[in-house]
Amino acid sequence: MMAPASPRREILVSLLGLGVVGSGIASVLQSKKSLFASLVGCPLVLRRALVRDPGKPRLIPNSFITTNPEDILGDRATDIVVEVMGEEHPALEYVQQAISAEKHVVTANKEIMAKHGPDLLKLASQKEVQLLFEASVGAGIPIIAPLQRDLLGNNIASIRAIINGTTNYILTKMANEGQDFATALRQAQELGYAEANPANDVEGHDAAYKLAILATLAFRTKVYPSDIHCEGITRLAPKDFRYAQEFGYAIKLLAIGRKSNGAVQVTVYPALVPRDEIIAKVDGVFNAIEIKGDLSGPVLFHGMGAGSLPTTSAVLGDVISIARNIAAGARPAPWLGMDHGLNIKPVTQLQTRCYLRLLVADRPGVLAQIAHILGDRQISIASVIQKDADPKEGTAEIVIMTHPSLEAAIQDALVRLNELAVVKKVASFLRVEST
Amino acid sequence: MMAPASPRREILVSLLGLGVVGSGIASVLQSKKSLFASLVGCPLVLRRALVRDPGKPRLIPNSFITTNPEDILGDRATDIVVEVMGEEHPALEYVQQAISAEKHVVTANKEIMAKHGPDLLKLASQKEVQLLFEASVGAGIPIIAPLQRDLLGNNIASIRAIINGTTNYILTKMANEGQDFATALRQAQELGYAEANPANDVEGHDAAYKLAILATLAFRTKVYPSDIHCEGITRLAPKDFRYAQEFGYAIKLLAIGRKSNGAVQVTVYPALVPRDEIIAKVDGVFNAIEIKGDLSGPVLFHGMGAGSLPTTSAVLGDVISIARNIAAGARPAPWLGMDHGLNIKPVTQLQTRCYLRLLVADRPGVLAQIAHILGDRQISIASVIQKDADPKEGTAEIVIMTHPSLEAAIQDALVRLNELAVVKKVASFLRVEST
Repeated sequence: MMAPASPRREILVSLLGLGVVGSGIASVLQSKKSLFASLVGCPLVLRRALVRDPGKPRLIPNSFITTNPEDILGDRATDIVVEVMGEEHPALEYVQQAISAEKHVVTANKEIMAKHGPDLLKLASQKEVQLLFEASVGAGIPIIAPLQRDLLGNNIASIRAIINGTTNYILTKMANEGQDFATALRQAQELGYAEANPANDVEGHDAAYKLAILATLAFRTKVYPSDIHCEGITRLAPKDFRYAQEFGYAIKLLAIGRKSNGAVQVTVYPALVPRDEIIAKVDGVFNAIEIKGDLSGPVLFHGMGAGSLPTTSAVLGDVISIARNIAAGARPAPWLGMDHGLNIKPVTQLQTRCYLRLLVADRPGVLAQIAHILGDRQISIASVIQKDADPKEGTAEIVIMTHPSLEAAIQDALVRLNELAVVKKVASFLRVEST
Repeated sequence: MMAPASPRREILVSLLGLGVVGSGIASVLQSKKSLFASLVGCPLVLRRALVRDPGKPRLIPNSFITTNPEDILGDRATDIVVEVMGEEHPALEYVQQAISAEKHVVTANKEIMAKHGPDLLKLASQKEVQLLFEASVGAGIPIIAPLQRDLLGNNIASIRAIINGTTNYILTKMANEGQDFATALRQAQELGYAEANPANDVEGHDAAYKLAILATLAFRTKVYPSDIHCEGITRLAPKDFRYAQEFGYAIKLLAIGRKSNGAVQVTVYPALVPRDEIIAKVDGVFNAIEIKGDLSGPVLFHGMGAGSLPTTSAVLGDVISIARNIAAGARPAPWLGMDHGLNIKPVTQLQTRCYLRLLVADRPGVLAQIAHILGDRQISIASVIQKDADPKEGTAEIVIMTHPSLEAAIQDALVRLNELAVVKKVASFLRVEST
């Protein structure tokens, strides 16, 4: 479909969803209408908004509101459909329908982009419309467009990202104030940084959605959430933060994607990060994404990874970009493709240093037994510190940092360590991130 | 000029300049040709390269090389001209000529974009070609494109940037190792981070060029290097870093642009930055640019701001972007314009906290005299520390931090303080950056 060359009188935007983000977009379209008209070359106008509950009091006039998706998806006049409903269904079906009807789509939906992004992008390419999704990762941080444009000359070697504000807030509290996980979570919930059911965040699933999107673009191969080895932060103890600090590390929930030898490794887990790295200094609800290209070197994008206004910023950037193309009669550039077909490398093949905290019987010979199990599996010890002996219980804590070792060997060692009579508990196991 | 809809057999790139960056681009066009062909939809091929000295041994065959600019500027086949010569002349004339001949241009030249960017962009818009310049600021860090696309929904309130790697390296050395300026500069020169004639970097002019480019885009008004109040880092002493650290600050050469009340204030000077801000943690040759939008909040871009490979990354991102548009038969989106026509606010109207280090006579009543001069000018003192008394010389050092005050009043006070008999010297005056 070649866009018309005749000048446009206006460009019409319809919203699927009118929650906090949708309302924000509607309101900014109104308050910045003269700015946007000057950017686009013609007015950018709200056409309709789909809501679930038409009775709810709202700032925008009732005439804009509909409860029938067909009023938008079947509306010939709507140029750009903005999907800000969230969740997989029915958002996915609506987006598919909008693209099939040759409408440009902007979505903030990480779940549908993570699970169905490659198919949706292919459909959009076939229909010669744009599907943009800057808001799906890192909210107000420009990352999707830079990956698809500025960094295209690079072979991307790795992604390392802090892309969940809830968990980063909790980890920052645990690190700075010595809080335990439950306390920090409760505080995050009171401040509205964590949901009543926090599982999606604290188990790492939200970060995995975003990593799937980033990895798919960076490595131009299909990476789905189910490909990602995902561990959350619920098992971290205040002690781990203290010890990590003594060793010179912060603890961050990292989403990591690495390409090597024709395969991609994608993981989400809490990791020790050297404290002098800038990614270790990303605190509170901030997000950061580091992309390492063979030419660019490491490039880091830092900002507010959540919230209504930052999400609105990203959505509007996409909307204006599409509107400028429509107004200019420009066709979208060709599909980048995701056809590199790289394999997903299982986490068992990860090479990683690790941090182990063991609760052991406080008596001679214990370390020898532990070292034996590790040594047998080619896991070499970089340092050991004995901590916090408890004479009453007859226990002590041993903290071990290893040299880079094979994940499969480490997991096997953990099982064997747990079976040792002198080991009361493998209290903590964390990987150490090194560049 | 509407681009042809018929598929392209290839897209031809010619280089003005074949130094380190030009050679890098030529080499990557060759080594990644199949990747780039898949991104663009047809091969992206080197056509010609302009050099000064044809006798110099080079990796690319002689058949590509010319010493006559007309072979490129007058070449009908060349689609994209890449200018990597540097300096103002004759690069400016070549770029003008290329655009006038309806060629797309990619330039890494901060000087011509800072001094002539608005005119060149207007010319490109009239000729319906693209002029891209991602490499002109922050090398491999995507910042120009995000400002012109992702952040367009925002009113940008401020830019704060560390955009000169040479000075940031020197400041990091002075802070971490207590070196004086001359020693740190010499070391930077030995490592190739500073030029034999370092004035352009250490006096802040390079940063001012880049700030002019960023401010023009962010505020969509014409900002030229001559509008920028510019101070370098040559007068900093190791002591200032020690005292700044005691107060909780780092010292960074900041390029700052702020918009308020229809005016823009643009400055380059070394400033005290609170150490817990992420921009204070940007060390060594790294660069960082923080953009604050009304919707996005603060967004920070961090990476390698200089070097052949990062610059090549940025240039190639631009080249591929243009090539994808050519191959798709897409016209460039309309010109964004720089027509906000904001006034430039003189530095005398700056409201800033400041740090003063005074060498004074070590006797009673001195502070009263100093406080009197400051108080008379509505400069209120936040804290005072007396340092390093020298009984032999009969001198002491006083370090003063003020509350926010008017720059004009501060400058007036500095003159008067220097006239006081009890003040041997105003040894240091630095502004304090606060968000």
